[in-house]
Amino acid sequence: MKLTILGCHSATPRTNTNPTSQVLEIKNHMFLIDCGEGTQVELRRNKIKFARIKHIFISHLHGDHYFGLVGLVSTFRLLTRETELHIYGPKGLKEVITLQLKLSDSWTNYPLIFHELSSKESELIFEDDKVEVYTIPLKHRIYTNGFLFKEKENERKLDINAITEANINKAYFRKLKQGFDVENEDGVLISNEKVTKDAIPAKSYAFCSDTVYNEAIVPIIKNSTVLYHESTFLDKNEALCIPTKHSTARQAATIAKKANVGTLILGHYSTRYNGYDQFKQEAKTVFDNVLLAKDGKEFSFD
Amino acid sequence: MKLTILGCHSATPRTNTNPTSQVLEIKNHMFLIDCGEGTQVELRRNKIKFARIKHIFISHLHGDHYFGLVGLVSTFRLLTRETELHIYGPKGLKEVITLQLKLSDSWTNYPLIFHELSSKESELIFEDDKVEVYTIPLKHRIYTNGFLFKEKENERKLDINAITEANINKAYFRKLKQGFDVENEDGVLISNEKVTKDAIPAKSYAFCSDTVYNEAIVPIIKNSTVLYHESTFLDKNEALCIPTKHSTARQAATIAKKANVGTLILGHYSTRYNGYDQFKQEAKTVFDNVLLAKDGKEFSFD
Repeated sequence: MKLTILGCHSATPRTNTNPTSQVLEIKNHMFLIDCGEGTQVELRRNKIKFARIKHIFISHLHGDHYFGLVGLVSTFRLLTRETELHIYGPKGLKEVITLQLKLSDSWTNYPLIFHELSSKESELIFEDDKVEVYTIPLKHRIYTNGFLFKEKENERKLDINAITEANINKAYFRKLKQGFDVENEDGVLISNEKVTKDAIPAKSYAFCSDTVYNEAIVPIIKNSTVLYHESTFLDKNEALCIPTKHSTARQAATIAKKANVGTLILGHYSTRYNGYDQFKQEAKTVFDNVLLAKDGKEFSFD
Repeated sequence: MKLTILGCHSATPRTNTNPTSQVLEIKNHMFLIDCGEGTQVELRRNKIKFARIKHIFISHLHGDHYFGLVGLVSTFRLLTRETELHIYGPKGLKEVITLQLKLSDSWTNYPLIFHELSSKESELIFEDDKVEVYTIPLKHRIYTNGFLFKEKENERKLDINAITEANINKAYFRKLKQGFDVENEDGVLISNEKVTKDAIPAKSYAFCSDTVYNEAIVPIIKNSTVLYHESTFLDKNEALCIPTKHSTARQAATIAKKANVGTLILGHYSTRYNGYDQFKQEAKTVFDNVLLAKDGKEFSFD
C-alpha cells in the first residue's frame, strides 16, 4: 500500500503549495482522492501514469478539492483514453462536469461513469475481489465524505514443507489457503493451522478531509492501518475550527487515538503557517505515530 | 503598453508548459485575457497583483482557455476582495461559474458581473475615457472571439515655448490639446499646429486565438501595433488546420502582413513540437517583425 501526496494545503493553490489531491496504490489499484486545481500537472510531476487511474473519489465540492477534475477528464479525452473512468462524489458533480464538456462541444470518447453520493450514512461504494471502499460521513460546511479503503482479508500462506510432510495433494491448496482442514492422500484429516501460516494482515487507509472534530467517525475507521486526517489549524487558532468546520492537529490525533489507528498523517494545512513541525508536536502530545504530509511525498506501508 | 505571457501552449497543462493566459497592461488597466488551468499560480509567479485585475476576457469555452477561471474567482473571494470583477466571454460562462459557486455554498463577497457574448459581428464591449475593447469574431470549432484593445487618440502635446511667445492664456490649454485653434490675449487667432506637437500615437493590441486562417478579421485588426495570432502548427502539419480549426505560423504571418500590423507575436503552440524557432522561421518568410511568445515573458511596446 503506497500513498503519494500530490497536494496537502488548504484554500488556494500557490507557487509552492498545492491543494488537496493524493493517489492511493492498493492491491494494484491507483485510486485518485480529491483533485484540486493543478492535479494533472502534479500527476505528471510524480510520474503517475494517467491510464492507471480508473477511479476518482471527490470528498466535497469546495474548489480546493475538485477544480482540477474537469481538466483531468478533458486531458484524458485529448490523450484518446478508452478505459472507463469512475467518479465518486457529491450530487452536483456530474452536472458541473457534463455542463463544461457540453459547452466545449467535446464529449469524452471513453466511458465516464458518475456515482453520485448523497447518503448521510457510511456506505459501500466500490468492491472487487481484493478491495472495498466505504464512505466516511464527515461534518463540514457542505456535504462531505471521507473514504475508507480496505483490503479484503488475505489468504493464509502455505507452509510447503509441512504440506509435503503431511502428504496433501495440491488439488487442496486452494481450500488450505481459505483456512479449511483437508484430508491427506491417506484419508487422514489434517488441521489447517498445522500446514499454513497466518495471512498477511489486510491493510486499510482512511482519508478524512475536510471535517470538524467528529467522534462519530471513530467506529468506521477503527483499527485502520493509516488515517489521513485534516489538521487545518494549530491549537492557537482552535477558535476558528467551529465556524470553518475544520480541525486542529491535536483533534486529529485524538481521533487517531480513539480509533486505534496505526499511523496518523496530518495535512490540509492552512497557508497562514510557515513550516509544519508545530503540527506534529501538538499531535504527538496525544498520539505517538504521526507523519506530516508534504506535496510530492510518498508513504509506503508494507 | 505591456504584455505578460502567463501561458501560450495549446491543449493540456504540463510541468513546463501552461495553457493560454496573458495580462495586457494598457492605460493603467490590467486586462486578463483567457484563463487556463493554473493561471492564478502563474499570476503569483509573475508578481501580478490580483487586486489590479478588474476585467477578464475569455475567448472561448475550450478548457485550455478558461478552466482556471473558477479557481481565480474563488481565490478572489478567499482574499476578501471587494472590487468589482467584470468577465467577458461566451454565453454559458455565467452558468458554469455560478453553478460551481452555488455547489460550494460560497457566493462572492465582491460584485461579479458577467458580460456574455453571442454576436457574430465585431462589437464594442468595454469603453472608458482612455481605452476601447472590441470583439474580433474568429472561426474555431466553437463560438470564439479575439479581442482588440485600442487606446483612444492621445491629446496633442503643448509646445510651451511657442505658447508663451504667442501670448495664449492657459485657460485655452485644454482646447489646444484637443486640436482647436484659439485666440491669444490680443484677440489674434493662433493656428493650433504652430503651438502644439503631434500626440503620441495611440497603440492597439489584437489577440486572436483560437482560429483557423480567416481574412475576415483583417479589416478589424488593420494597423494594430501588436497582433498575437495563434500558430498551433508548422507547415508540415498544415493539413491539421482545417479539421481542428487552427492556424500555422505562416498563416498567422499572412494575416499580420495583410493587416499591416507593427509586430506579430506567435503562440498557442502544439505540444508536439520541441522548440519554437521553426515557427519564427516559417512566419518570417512572409512577415518580418515576428516575436515568439514564451511562458513568463514580458513584452513592452512604448
